[in-house]
Amino acid sequence: MSSEPWHQNLAARGMATAIGIEITELTCERVIATMPVDDRTRQPFGILHGGASMALAETVASIGATACIDREQFVAVGQEINGNHLRSKSNGVVTATATPIHVGRRSHVWSIEIVDEEKNLICIARCTMAIVPKKS
Amino acid sequence: MSSEPWHQNLAARGMATAIGIEITELTCERVIATMPVDDRTRQPFGILHGGASMALAETVASIGATACIDREQFVAVGQEINGNHLRSKSNGVVTATATPIHVGRRSHVWSIEIVDEEKNLICIARCTMAIVPKKS
Amino acid sequence: MSSEPWHQNLAARGMATAIGIEITELTCERVIATMPVDDRTRQPFGILHGGASMALAETVASIGATACIDREQFVAVGQEINGNHLRSKSNGVVTATATPIHVGRRSHVWSIEIVDEEKNLICIARCTMAIVPKKS
Amino acid sequence: MSSEPWHQNLAARGMATAIGIEITELTCERVIATMPVDDRTRQPFGILHGGASMALAETVASIGATACIDREQFVAVGQEINGNHLRSKSNGVVTATATPIHVGRRSHVWSIEIVDEEKNLICIARCTMAIVPKKS
Repeated sequence: MSSEPWHQNLAARGMATAIGIEITELTCERVIATMPVDDRTRQPFGILHGGASMALAETVASIGATACIDREQFVAVGQEINGNHLRSKSNGVVTATATPIHVGRRSHVWSIEIVDEEKNLICIARCTMAIVPKKS
Repeated sequence: MSSEPWHQNLAARGMATAIGIEITELTCERVIATMPVDDRTRQPFGILHGGASMALAETVASIGATACIDREQFVAVGQEINGNHLRSKSNGVVTATATPIHVGRRSHVWSIEIVDEEKNLICIARCTMAIVPKKS
Repeated sequence: MSSEPWHQNLAARGMATAIGIEITELTCERVIATMPVDDRTRQPFGILHGGASMALAETVASIGATACIDREQFVAVGQEINGNHLRSKSNGVVTATATPIHVGRRSHVWSIEIVDEEKNLICIARCTMAIVPKKS
Repeated sequence: MSSEPWHQNLAARGMATAIGIEITELTCERVIATMPVDDRTRQPFGILHGGASMALAETVASIGATACIDREQFVAVGQEINGNHLRSKSNGVVTATATPIHVGRRSHVWSIEIVDEEKNLICIARCTMAIVPKKS
């Protein structure tokens, strides 16, 4: 089972594309993606919208979980996500790295760190996903 | 101090606009906003992206907190947000309502419920904001 | 299937007993319990320990979820919990009320509010539980 | 300013003592504590109570934050805590390690990992604390 098709689909449409997210690394052990701080991801006062960080965090965690399951039989569904916003940023690019904390049969927990160009921590998040059998 | 200018600015630019969020009610007691489920807010498998729900939640909470403080002297800064995704949705519109749980001098906590057209709960979230003196 | 035995067992042993938690109402729609603010639940500086609030919150949510499932076949297992501490308290009694936000086949989400004697909100929490088939 | 008195006070009373928590390392960079899995920390079905994990997590985070501030002028107050329960445990001892993620003037964020005797992860948590000036 190649990871190519579903990953290319991921990159090609939906919210991630709308706000400029690009996946740069994708394995079961780590997912990395970038997101620009621009008009698509800023809040009205000119800094990175906390919701953009959360959208980026949930994107990389979901892709990571999906990469690690039998996609013929299961889907990964986001259940819970939480994050702390630690530092503001008004332009440039942020980079998110998701790593698995717990990979169970029924659920995954992934940790996500978002940093700026100098590796300063912008946001730290944790996402719980249910691994659900596909309806047949 | 009129609430007009900052609210119009909020509506006019940034991430909320990029993903179709529209504020329909804004007071200190309640903020309501809508968001379409479309290509800007779906994940690759065709349903509402959990990160879009979080972006909507943080938007209404931030606007609500900003509405309730002395904006000449303070800014509301998102510190922490968490949410549970309860139901999937593939099209139409969701509506978020934010209400204040705690309005302190140094911090606010707002609760956010996101529902579909039939008032089914899609996401429930809670956001902690720091109320920080403006640098002068 | 009587709810008596498991509930009595709940009340009779374990952490809830160790820190003075008493269940005063138990249905599928609502669980209420009290907890004293005393040496068992204070932190060193003399006020209610945030961890005691979380223990109380997880107790009532778990009991509520357990009350609402087929206990012959399933168990409710705590997956995630989060809470905001809103007000300090140095003595007296707090009362927690848990209500179900989402009752699914695979997971529950319960909301918990903890108040003081004057109904001031001390803590607000949310708990996600997995509903897992018993091994046979 | 010696760290002795307040730390000894911490160890000597309150909830941490009531449920068997013992602090084994305490610096600004790391706090480590143990907690037995026994009748004081189990839920009724005989496994470690998730609320005990949260109480342990909030204890080490609070002590760590308190260790890192000017205690003559400020106090660290728990604002938000969240955690995922990853593995059950029915006896023995768990060990929590808290490390600072963000040490700001107004707030701290600490990460907490709780493991069993074989370093398996039992719980992962994150705690936000407000650093508040003492009333004078």
